[in-house]
Amino acid sequence: MSAPIYGRVALIGLGLIAASMAHAMRARGLAGEITGHAKSAETRAAALEIGLCDRVFDTAADAVAGADLVVLAVPVGVMGAIAAEIAPHLKPGATLTDVGSVKQAVIEAVAPHVPAGVHFIPGHPLAGTEHSGPHAGFATLFVNRWWLLTPLPDTPEAPVAQLRALCEAMGANVDLMEPAHHDLVLAVTSHTPHLIAYTMVGVADHLRRVTETEIVKYSAAGFRDFTRIAASDPTMWRDVFLTNKDATLDILGRFTEELFVLQRAIRMGDGQLLFDYFTRTRAIRRGIIEAGQDTAAPDFGRGAPPPEVG
Amino acid sequence: MSAPIYGRVALIGLGLIAASMAHAMRARGLAGEITGHAKSAETRAAALEIGLCDRVFDTAADAVAGADLVVLAVPVGVMGAIAAEIAPHLKPGATLTDVGSVKQAVIEAVAPHVPAGVHFIPGHPLAGTEHSGPHAGFATLFVNRWWLLTPLPDTPEAPVAQLRALCEAMGANVDLMEPAHHDLVLAVTSHTPHLIAYTMVGVADHLRRVTETEIVKYSAAGFRDFTRIAASDPTMWRDVFLTNKDATLDILGRFTEELFVLQRAIRMGDGQLLFDYFTRTRAIRRGIIEAGQDTAAPDFGRGAPPPEVG
Repeated sequence: MSAPIYGRVALIGLGLIAASMAHAMRARGLAGEITGHAKSAETRAAALEIGLCDRVFDTAADAVAGADLVVLAVPVGVMGAIAAEIAPHLKPGATLTDVGSVKQAVIEAVAPHVPAGVHFIPGHPLAGTEHSGPHAGFATLFVNRWWLLTPLPDTPEAPVAQLRALCEAMGANVDLMEPAHHDLVLAVTSHTPHLIAYTMVGVADHLRRVTETEIVKYSAAGFRDFTRIAASDPTMWRDVFLTNKDATLDILGRFTEELFVLQRAIRMGDGQLLFDYFTRTRAIRRGIIEAGQDTAAPDFGRGAPPPEVG
Repeated sequence: MSAPIYGRVALIGLGLIAASMAHAMRARGLAGEITGHAKSAETRAAALEIGLCDRVFDTAADAVAGADLVVLAVPVGVMGAIAAEIAPHLKPGATLTDVGSVKQAVIEAVAPHVPAGVHFIPGHPLAGTEHSGPHAGFATLFVNRWWLLTPLPDTPEAPVAQLRALCEAMGANVDLMEPAHHDLVLAVTSHTPHLIAYTMVGVADHLRRVTETEIVKYSAAGFRDFTRIAASDPTMWRDVFLTNKDATLDILGRFTEELFVLQRAIRMGDGQLLFDYFTRTRAIRRGIIEAGQDTAAPDFGRGAPPPEVG
């Protein structure tokens, strides 16, 4: 157990990320007290039952009162409204952060509401799974994952260092980044891949000549990798695309151009182009494994089948 | 140990699939003897060293002599040439199969060479990993995976039943299918997803404003799922696209149309369309998990991080 890094932490939104933060903070004694709020009564009850929060409140305003750290862990599209609601109740000197997947839009929506004396430090943990809700959280979600902070130019160093210490104590690596660059990097590493996965799964869903049973049965040939990220929370992802529109459309444009080059090579029978392209992409995979951001085990080390059969 | 299903099995090509078949047949005593051939002397030496084959030969013709089952486990583009080479050496009454990812093109290339009295039964195990070569094989690769057979209309039932028994004894589920339908189904569940993954990884590779270090560091946000299949064997995949051209181009066309619908929704701010789309795709993921073709564990159950940190 470490010494608490914040006296009272308020979690606004109690889904996968907030629940994992609660587990991680409790496991290591990083918060004196954890309060919380979620829109749904069912989620609030679950948070108490699992022990994520010491106290839950029916309103976000009540949950943040007296908190040293307030974490906005709600879809990007509602961050502004929540910020407006809680602003008058934030404790002077408190830190306000968020865990949204987009940073410029969150800053535009939240920053105008933040009272003087409260430090707003936007953040984004690059961690998650395809599961959602308070029951999906676990204490090690952030271990060896990156947590990006995009502090505004006028934020003092001390509150940034304190928030960084919390992220690191939960197991994450922290990088500081410009909000606009964050949104571009994430458009490449996350937002566009998700949209493409959703699209491929949608194509399969619409085909008449291949049945859904066939898609499901024969998915191990590659398709199933796409379905994992296409199973992510629809509200969260709708908001990501609506609020990181420019960078996503930029990368999508490049993706389509590139796809057309490969499509043309297939049509024209240009095997050399295909071979060279497919050879280059292997190197990136190696880099990711060497950087500890994925497993080298075949098939991601998916649960191994039983060693002996019939 | 079961009784051997074939007396002598010849493996032509000694990569991931053939090596896994060798391990699986040995583990369960399914072949009296296993012979093999690979183009490279290094692979042949490895196959002996690992114990995949009882004997290896410098030519495919020598390897197939006297074999009751011959398995073509080479890239689709060279199947025809190998078939021409081995045809005069095939034992009367033997079964010839292949493990290629495309079936119509393999039939066109191989069938004309097959002598009367040899049963050519095209096949395709829907199993694999992103690793290649003789060292990548393992005995349980086919467990609970589908093995599709696309027998020609004039093939007697007995040799099909015998090959099916071998596949099932290695742990696979077997389905029979028309070759053309196979190629369409695989274009959806495998070939197009692979091309899209290659493309996305290629886009990331070409971006100047986001460094490769950033792509690699922040890949856990979704991108890394794509890199696994984009690390697959370049020769194999070049041949797949060149030989399943029509079905792949058909599905790619649908994919692009669908992507443009979502891209337009992002541009126009149509959140309802995005939300509805993303909700439908979750159901397919559930189907795949219920069918036992993927794990429900978060992140595919990737090796869990250590339970306690700093």
